[in-house]
Amino acid sequence: MNPLNRRNVGIFVFDGVEVLDFAGPFEVFSRTRLAPGIDSRRSDETAPFEVFTVAAAAGMVTATGGLRIEPHCTFATAPPIDLLVVPGGFGTRALVNDAGTLAWIQSVAERSEHLTSVCTGALLLAAAGLLRDRPATTHWGALDLLGQIDPSVQVERDMRVVHDGAVTTSAGVSAGIDMAIDVVRRMFGDDVAADVARYMEYEVRR
Amino acid sequence: MNPLNRRNVGIFVFDGVEVLDFAGPFEVFSRTRLAPGIDSRRSDETAPFEVFTVAAAAGMVTATGGLRIEPHCTFATAPPIDLLVVPGGFGTRALVNDAGTLAWIQSVAERSEHLTSVCTGALLLAAAGLLRDRPATTHWGALDLLGQIDPSVQVERDMRVVHDGAVTTSAGVSAGIDMAIDVVRRMFGDDVAADVARYMEYEVRR
Repeated sequence: MNPLNRRNVGIFVFDGVEVLDFAGPFEVFSRTRLAPGIDSRRSDETAPFEVFTVAAAAGMVTATGGLRIEPHCTFATAPPIDLLVVPGGFGTRALVNDAGTLAWIQSVAERSEHLTSVCTGALLLAAAGLLRDRPATTHWGALDLLGQIDPSVQVERDMRVVHDGAVTTSAGVSAGIDMAIDVVRRMFGDDVAADVARYMEYEVRR
Repeated sequence: MNPLNRRNVGIFVFDGVEVLDFAGPFEVFSRTRLAPGIDSRRSDETAPFEVFTVAAAAGMVTATGGLRIEPHCTFATAPPIDLLVVPGGFGTRALVNDAGTLAWIQSVAERSEHLTSVCTGALLLAAAGLLRDRPATTHWGALDLLGQIDPSVQVERDMRVVHDGAVTTSAGVSAGIDMAIDVVRRMFGDDVAADVARYMEYEVRR
């Protein structure tokens, strides 16, 4: 029942996650279709991604601004993740010191094809040692902090999306949309990426 | 406890609502602050909006792509709404014929300061008779349908945000972000609008 060999996209959610940080990539990956247009989006037939949210434990998650979401699965119950999205938000401030979260991100990163972050989600990747000696970016308000967490990170201050091998980080909040579209482009080509951007009426920024 | 005379922003959610359609405006309105920068966003002290989601009835809502959200209130329990956001998504196809939904939108519109839509949310406003003789827009794939639902609507085919008195409609999906920032600009001025866009690292498109 998975004719496309669909990739599992796990989006990490936690209390204090910034709404657009997770919702932007959720929108892009869940609405990507290999067949263009609008009708192809009425079904999952040509959807190359299976997208779900993952929290540390069961129970509702409260995002920034009070949006309440119900995660699809937990660290313990999540299926294998091919592409991990680590969003940001003020909630990351506590999680950079949370051994359980960092260990989970490390274990997923070891087995996934793509590791991505939006905004201050990069702080979690850095704290987990996953940005060592890599170029990376984050929200403009956290660029210095990123370099403090891991001084070996080459902090990119003027890029919206930074891609280094299997790791893609992005600037703040809305840049997660550009990041996700860039990942789609690298995996499925310019036409598929342009089609989901057109569907979303989004103009990609570099 | 409401020193700013905060405006209540109600965001309608329903099964099949497009994720970014509601999440974009949720992000903009909930992260707007009258004091600039990042620290002002650590509290609600200078937040001019109180943002909540509203569904027809209690219970979880499943957005497009399967994102599960828990509405803050229902048609029956929602506080007075000053600014209504009607998002789009395939779920609107059933709702354009749902008398209860249309009656609720009409009753909120009568008492609110601002009536807004994103994407195919405009179809619901049109079906509720709220776009009569007005310029309006919607997702590019639904422009013809908008004119069919109410032939008196002046369908704007090349605008991202259309503002006519108390009614603001926007083009597809990501255009809801521009719509919300435009409403912030009209209510609180260029600086406050530019500050939330900068916080979100979003470049407004016209």
